[in-house]
Amino acid sequence: MEKMIYFFGKGVTEGNASMKMLLGGKGANLAEMASLGLPVPPGFTITTEVCAYFTKSGGKYPEGLQNDVEKNLVKLEDILGKKFGDRNNPLLVSVRSGAPASMPGMMDTILNLGLNETTVLGLAESTNNERFAYDAFRRFIQMYANVVLHVEHKLFEEVLNTVKHEKNVTLDVDLDVNDLKKIVKLYKELVKKETKKDFPDDVRTQLWGAIEAVFKSWNNERAIEYRKIEKIPEDWGTAVNVQSMVFGNMGNDSATGVAFTRNPSTGENYFYGEYLVNAQGEDVVAGIRTPQPINKNSKTDDSQKTLEELMPELYKELESYRNLLERHYKDMQDMEFTIEKGKLWMLQTRNGKRTPQAAIKIAINLYEEGIIDKKTAVLRVSPKDVDGMLHPMIDPKAELNVLSKGLPASPGAASGRIVFSAKEAVEKKKNEKELILVREETSPEDIVGMNICSGILTARGGMTSHAAVVARGLGKPCVVGCSDIEIDLEKRIMKIKDKVLKDGDYITIDGSTGRVIEGNVNKVKPELKNEFETLMKLTDEFKRLQIRANADTPSDAQTARNFGAKGIGLCRTEHMFFGEDRIEAMRQMILSSTTEERKKALEKILPMQREDFVGIFRAMDGYPVVIRTLDPPLHEFLPKEESQIKILASKMGISVDILEQKIESLKEANPMLGHRGCRLGITYPEITEMQTRAIIEAACIVTKEGKKVIPEIMIPLVGNVKELQLQKEVVVTTMKKVFEEYKMELKVLIGTMIELPRAALTAFEIAKEADFFSFGTNDLTQTTLGFSRDDVGPILKTYIEDKKILKDDPFQTLDQVGVGRLIKIAIEDAKKVNQNIELGICGEHGGDPASIDFFNKNGFDYVSCSPFRVPIARLAAAQSELKKE
Amino acid sequence: MEKMIYFFGKGVTEGNASMKMLLGGKGANLAEMASLGLPVPPGFTITTEVCAYFTKSGGKYPEGLQNDVEKNLVKLEDILGKKFGDRNNPLLVSVRSGAPASMPGMMDTILNLGLNETTVLGLAESTNNERFAYDAFRRFIQMYANVVLHVEHKLFEEVLNTVKHEKNVTLDVDLDVNDLKKIVKLYKELVKKETKKDFPDDVRTQLWGAIEAVFKSWNNERAIEYRKIEKIPEDWGTAVNVQSMVFGNMGNDSATGVAFTRNPSTGENYFYGEYLVNAQGEDVVAGIRTPQPINKNSKTDDSQKTLEELMPELYKELESYRNLLERHYKDMQDMEFTIEKGKLWMLQTRNGKRTPQAAIKIAINLYEEGIIDKKTAVLRVSPKDVDGMLHPMIDPKAELNVLSKGLPASPGAASGRIVFSAKEAVEKKKNEKELILVREETSPEDIVGMNICSGILTARGGMTSHAAVVARGLGKPCVVGCSDIEIDLEKRIMKIKDKVLKDGDYITIDGSTGRVIEGNVNKVKPELKNEFETLMKLTDEFKRLQIRANADTPSDAQTARNFGAKGIGLCRTEHMFFGEDRIEAMRQMILSSTTEERKKALEKILPMQREDFVGIFRAMDGYPVVIRTLDPPLHEFLPKEESQIKILASKMGISVDILEQKIESLKEANPMLGHRGCRLGITYPEITEMQTRAIIEAACIVTKEGKKVIPEIMIPLVGNVKELQLQKEVVVTTMKKVFEEYKMELKVLIGTMIELPRAALTAFEIAKEADFFSFGTNDLTQTTLGFSRDDVGPILKTYIEDKKILKDDPFQTLDQVGVGRLIKIAIEDAKKVNQNIELGICGEHGGDPASIDFFNKNGFDYVSCSPFRVPIARLAAAQSELKKE
Repeated sequence: MEKMIYFFGKGVTEGNASMKMLLGGKGANLAEMASLGLPVPPGFTITTEVCAYFTKSGGKYPEGLQNDVEKNLVKLEDILGKKFGDRNNPLLVSVRSGAPASMPGMMDTILNLGLNETTVLGLAESTNNERFAYDAFRRFIQMYANVVLHVEHKLFEEVLNTVKHEKNVTLDVDLDVNDLKKIVKLYKELVKKETKKDFPDDVRTQLWGAIEAVFKSWNNERAIEYRKIEKIPEDWGTAVNVQSMVFGNMGNDSATGVAFTRNPSTGENYFYGEYLVNAQGEDVVAGIRTPQPINKNSKTDDSQKTLEELMPELYKELESYRNLLERHYKDMQDMEFTIEKGKLWMLQTRNGKRTPQAAIKIAINLYEEGIIDKKTAVLRVSPKDVDGMLHPMIDPKAELNVLSKGLPASPGAASGRIVFSAKEAVEKKKNEKELILVREETSPEDIVGMNICSGILTARGGMTSHAAVVARGLGKPCVVGCSDIEIDLEKRIMKIKDKVLKDGDYITIDGSTGRVIEGNVNKVKPELKNEFETLMKLTDEFKRLQIRANADTPSDAQTARNFGAKGIGLCRTEHMFFGEDRIEAMRQMILSSTTEERKKALEKILPMQREDFVGIFRAMDGYPVVIRTLDPPLHEFLPKEESQIKILASKMGISVDILEQKIESLKEANPMLGHRGCRLGITYPEITEMQTRAIIEAACIVTKEGKKVIPEIMIPLVGNVKELQLQKEVVVTTMKKVFEEYKMELKVLIGTMIELPRAALTAFEIAKEADFFSFGTNDLTQTTLGFSRDDVGPILKTYIEDKKILKDDPFQTLDQVGVGRLIKIAIEDAKKVNQNIELGICGEHGGDPASIDFFNKNGFDYVSCSPFRVPIARLAAAQSELKKE
Repeated sequence: MEKMIYFFGKGVTEGNASMKMLLGGKGANLAEMASLGLPVPPGFTITTEVCAYFTKSGGKYPEGLQNDVEKNLVKLEDILGKKFGDRNNPLLVSVRSGAPASMPGMMDTILNLGLNETTVLGLAESTNNERFAYDAFRRFIQMYANVVLHVEHKLFEEVLNTVKHEKNVTLDVDLDVNDLKKIVKLYKELVKKETKKDFPDDVRTQLWGAIEAVFKSWNNERAIEYRKIEKIPEDWGTAVNVQSMVFGNMGNDSATGVAFTRNPSTGENYFYGEYLVNAQGEDVVAGIRTPQPINKNSKTDDSQKTLEELMPELYKELESYRNLLERHYKDMQDMEFTIEKGKLWMLQTRNGKRTPQAAIKIAINLYEEGIIDKKTAVLRVSPKDVDGMLHPMIDPKAELNVLSKGLPASPGAASGRIVFSAKEAVEKKKNEKELILVREETSPEDIVGMNICSGILTARGGMTSHAAVVARGLGKPCVVGCSDIEIDLEKRIMKIKDKVLKDGDYITIDGSTGRVIEGNVNKVKPELKNEFETLMKLTDEFKRLQIRANADTPSDAQTARNFGAKGIGLCRTEHMFFGEDRIEAMRQMILSSTTEERKKALEKILPMQREDFVGIFRAMDGYPVVIRTLDPPLHEFLPKEESQIKILASKMGISVDILEQKIESLKEANPMLGHRGCRLGITYPEITEMQTRAIIEAACIVTKEGKKVIPEIMIPLVGNVKELQLQKEVVVTTMKKVFEEYKMELKVLIGTMIELPRAALTAFEIAKEADFFSFGTNDLTQTTLGFSRDDVGPILKTYIEDKKILKDDPFQTLDQVGVGRLIKIAIEDAKKVNQNIELGICGEHGGDPASIDFFNKNGFDYVSCSPFRVPIARLAAAQSELKKE
């Protein structure tokens, strides 16, 4: 630690904006503003390194710190001509936290430090305002006692209220100087009673108490919690800013306020802010007085008095700083200012928080205004902002009764009446507009019902459970794994903790945060503006990765294309079989006991499949479409409930016994590792044959319509090159036949999913047979980590939250160390034997920015994700490429 | 192809014994014998390369073959002074197959080739035996027509029987020369009728037809089937041996026979064999006449006339060849000979097939006699022989009604009355000595019942299903995945194909072959002789790998030690909980809803676990014991059947509803990838704490008794180094406490299983925290290949037998390409950060010779297998080391 303290103040500033890691955001920006010549109350910043030392050593300071603090205090006193603890012209300071990353309200702050029975007299005299001085004193005692001495806040409120009550007044401002003196006395007695010690009168004791409290607040519970959510490293630490006080509450020529260089909600380019006359910053926060707009643009009603009107000169000065700071920082700024007796002081500037919509608008506008370049604009927007733009969200102003929180499985908010089964949903949809399907977990049978509902809520499952995957595919809000939910299907109710909700009650889910909210909450939808279009166009200039979408229907395909997908990376053929007319043929196929019977049933399915592919190929004119052959275990297509089994048996004309026996025989201990993927096609080559025929016939038909069709046929769950060889043989033979029948030929790539560790480990063999690899990172994660995504919910909760074994859900963000290593092995080996192999990824990770960065850096050709994540992927792909430079 | 044909015959031999790949076993040995000066009828061998060319080209011969055959025929004619197709002194030949590996009876042979209406006259004259000549002719027609022209054998039998019937005789020998001439005529008519062509009279047409038939017979069904079983490569091909005929059926001074240089059943060192006077080789096989012993030692009853007595000079000559050949080949030989008119001819010699017992005895005796060295002796015995020595086997002489075949899951044969549930087994055992448990599949609840039965038979599951693993552990014969079985529990019957067996019926299973046999079949048990002990001692001289055993009880541990295990590589603690008194405490633990309750239940389990470990440590005095903490998902310990749930609920004093809810909540879609392994210990550290306490307390107690205890604590299913760190912390803390209490300290290794791909891929992190790695290759195979071993049975059948995707069951023989690569990565990375890390393997592969070779070559310190496989592993480990040199 070379230097523990950095001074700031006009002409004597030691730090700058680039030193955020060392000085924290606040400290670095105060130094920068001071350097720019802005009126910043001088002070000094104790570095984050000191905090780290303090934390590690269990509460000790590095040698020499005390000495350095004294030296900087003297410097401060010299500049201001005031003295810390002085009877006549006392220096008062604020002590504030300030971490490298913004952690608003998470850590402690103390104002007015340096007041005691002696200095309060000097403050009264120097300000010529005794009431102000004692008000500051009592505020300081209350704040200090709470933050540093841990005396409960409400005890001070009780004292204050008692005095007000005795005097029969309601507002603080109605208390006179004697009341305040009395309160100071009572406060000190309270502190003595609670802490068994006198309130510290010594100003240096006060200062060190405050510094310690700020350092310690780095590890208070809410700060830890916040860091976990925002992924801020534990070891960064906070800086401490000791800054001379300025007061906005010294009369009607004083004020305090907050301003944004642009509107943080809409992103519009005008100065925007609020202020209060004769007030300290905390008054704005407390919400007792309503802040006023700083200018006309910030007005919400006409009766409001703006700062521009009230103090036009000072407003002009403030506006000049607005321009200066935004141009200097090249981003929208959130500034705090105080006016003390007609003098403007700048207390803080930082990049302003903004809504997703504003984030995009501001970045693009700044680029269009020539303040930042294209690359910066693209890097400025976070993929989360883009995500936020695409889904309705809970009205930020709405009052919420949050019942519980599950996993945010598919973003956006939705409200609707509770329905407990997909079948009922279909029934009820006739009379109800909005339904929320609430299930223990969903299964492929539920697809039709899920598609009809406004949102899906499950008690079990993780981020890649069936409900989650399907909902994301449908672009429907979804909350999964909400373990507080207990469903009682008999009574047709569900309990969330103590709350009982009936079938038909209104409920709201927020798939972006996981919240489950009572009733019908108002929602707002961000509009897609021109700036969004511009941003997306810019991403295309920079990204190398192609973005495709996972889409199983023509309408999904169209959505994906509208969002900018340049192809389909995964078309799952099995989802096509759950329609009423289709499932029947599928079941016939499964229940066939001979190849002949099976072929007959498959013949019924053929035209349906072909029709689906025709629709998809049309929608994807000119773009590639990767179609995966049948993947899930067959038992997924058979009914589970007894009543359903009976119906099916009678439809099929077989006995319930035989049907049950067949269903039983298809049961597996671990279906994820069972008879699925290419294992089906190898056992029943006639399935692959039918599917190939449907694909190629559709391709021929659509080609004859004059469209460009680029089919890629993908064999799933290959673990052995011979599996691929056998399936490829079926595909090629069938393909040739169909081409002969249609008297044409098309180029068709035949490739495989890499979703088993063995596939990755033997890529050097498999790549010889494959035109492309598409990494199925969902399954690859399951097998590599040994986690079943259907069961992993509670384990991940323990692993991420309680035990901190994992940082992220590996089904959302790729495990680069483990799964990533397998992928790298596979790519390296594959390229050696097949230089031109096409490399893609079609797991959930295809829509995750961190994972996209990994795929981009490792030479993938494309990622494929849910249609609704395509814009996010486009941005993430561009940012990854830009960050590589 | 440089040379397509190799000639053999005294003084002009071109091949030798080392050319088996090219000349086949028979051809190479004929050449070798000829070179040694033994009387071998001269001939020539067409190479296996010609066969490979023939097969690949779809039935074409390489250029020049015809010319080469002609040249060699001329050579043969010159040596013998006979001519092929000659009226006066015709040359007759046999045409025989002969592959590099022995495939007895699988391919075709033709004798007496070269006979036609002309040459038969010459044969009659030159032998002065017309009857003999026509008998040879009719035999030739029959054989040739069957093998080359595909005329059914039984049609010839019908003709023969008709003639005998007309003549009113029963034996062939009662037919005179006219009868035989008539038969020749009828045979030719039959051929004409069946093939629409005349029987070929041209001797060259005959020869080429026979050559083609032999080459084609390489790909007949039974040959393909045999190669699959014996793992003989498809592309080797067979050689064709064209050899001049000699006849053992030319009168009472002629004979034919088979002899072994030692007794092939017992291995005893005396000349052993059978012969028939005036007979051809096929007569011995046909079994119409009973062969006679060649000498006194081979006699089974006193009335028999030996060759030694009948032809003492020739016997002496034969015996001299016995000594010469055994010394020359340094192994027990199986020789074929023919005596033609007082002259001895050697037709074949090869290493003789032998029983497991004989294999061991012969190898060790040859070593003791100084014929082979130690290394050769160890390499001479196959691990299968050792396996065979350890289990009772079906009496080879017993007549069997084989009902079906399943997978040979645990070797040995067992008979008993059928019982359909483990619980009933316990009941019935009171009155019945032998029971066979027949189940769809078994579960941990069945352990007690399984232990009581003589054998286990399941309809489902693969080689590593629960039944298979437990049975091997118990050393009990077991057949699994016998899919022909349909159990009807209500009717208390099972169907195997059309056969219905009742509860209580006798059945026999052969766990070495997978056979399921009706009734109570006689069994024999090979004796463990001195030679076995010597062999085992020799293995210890050569092997580098340590052999440990998987053992969960003191008695298992003792068995393992008796078999030569030098430690326990896997002690599964969960198997200890299925006893009646124990399961209750375990269930209490699982059903606890608070940590406190759980701890109370664990306290009840502690003394039981400690007691188990005390027993195991005592048995393993001086050897390491690797104990794995709790691994299986908790639901395995809870009952599944309603009646059982009711009983448990009332015992626990909770409602059936609540219990069912709890059981339901523990259910997982894919339990193999669920809440198990260290995930349990991380969620409930108190379990790991209790288990550590039990282990360390037991270690202290047994140490105080004066024994040497070397405990190793193993954390299962680690996929992330932090998991190991957390569990290690619990272990170390608890260990320290116990050591303090017992006022002593012991060295305890703490390590982990590597059974997830991610564990292998992040070994560079995990190895830093681990004293040892034990590769759990069962689970590693499951996750790497994406196969659930509970479900994989039918898939493997398709993959291995029908589609030939896999050569071996990957749960039996390690998949070296995929799983092996992961293991190599893990070892390489681990050694970089922890040079002294102990490396072991405790999956089923620890007892598989091919896998042991892999482990040995890759630097493992030990393998651990079922106690009953320890001798096999010892031998395999020694052989691997010897082969490395």
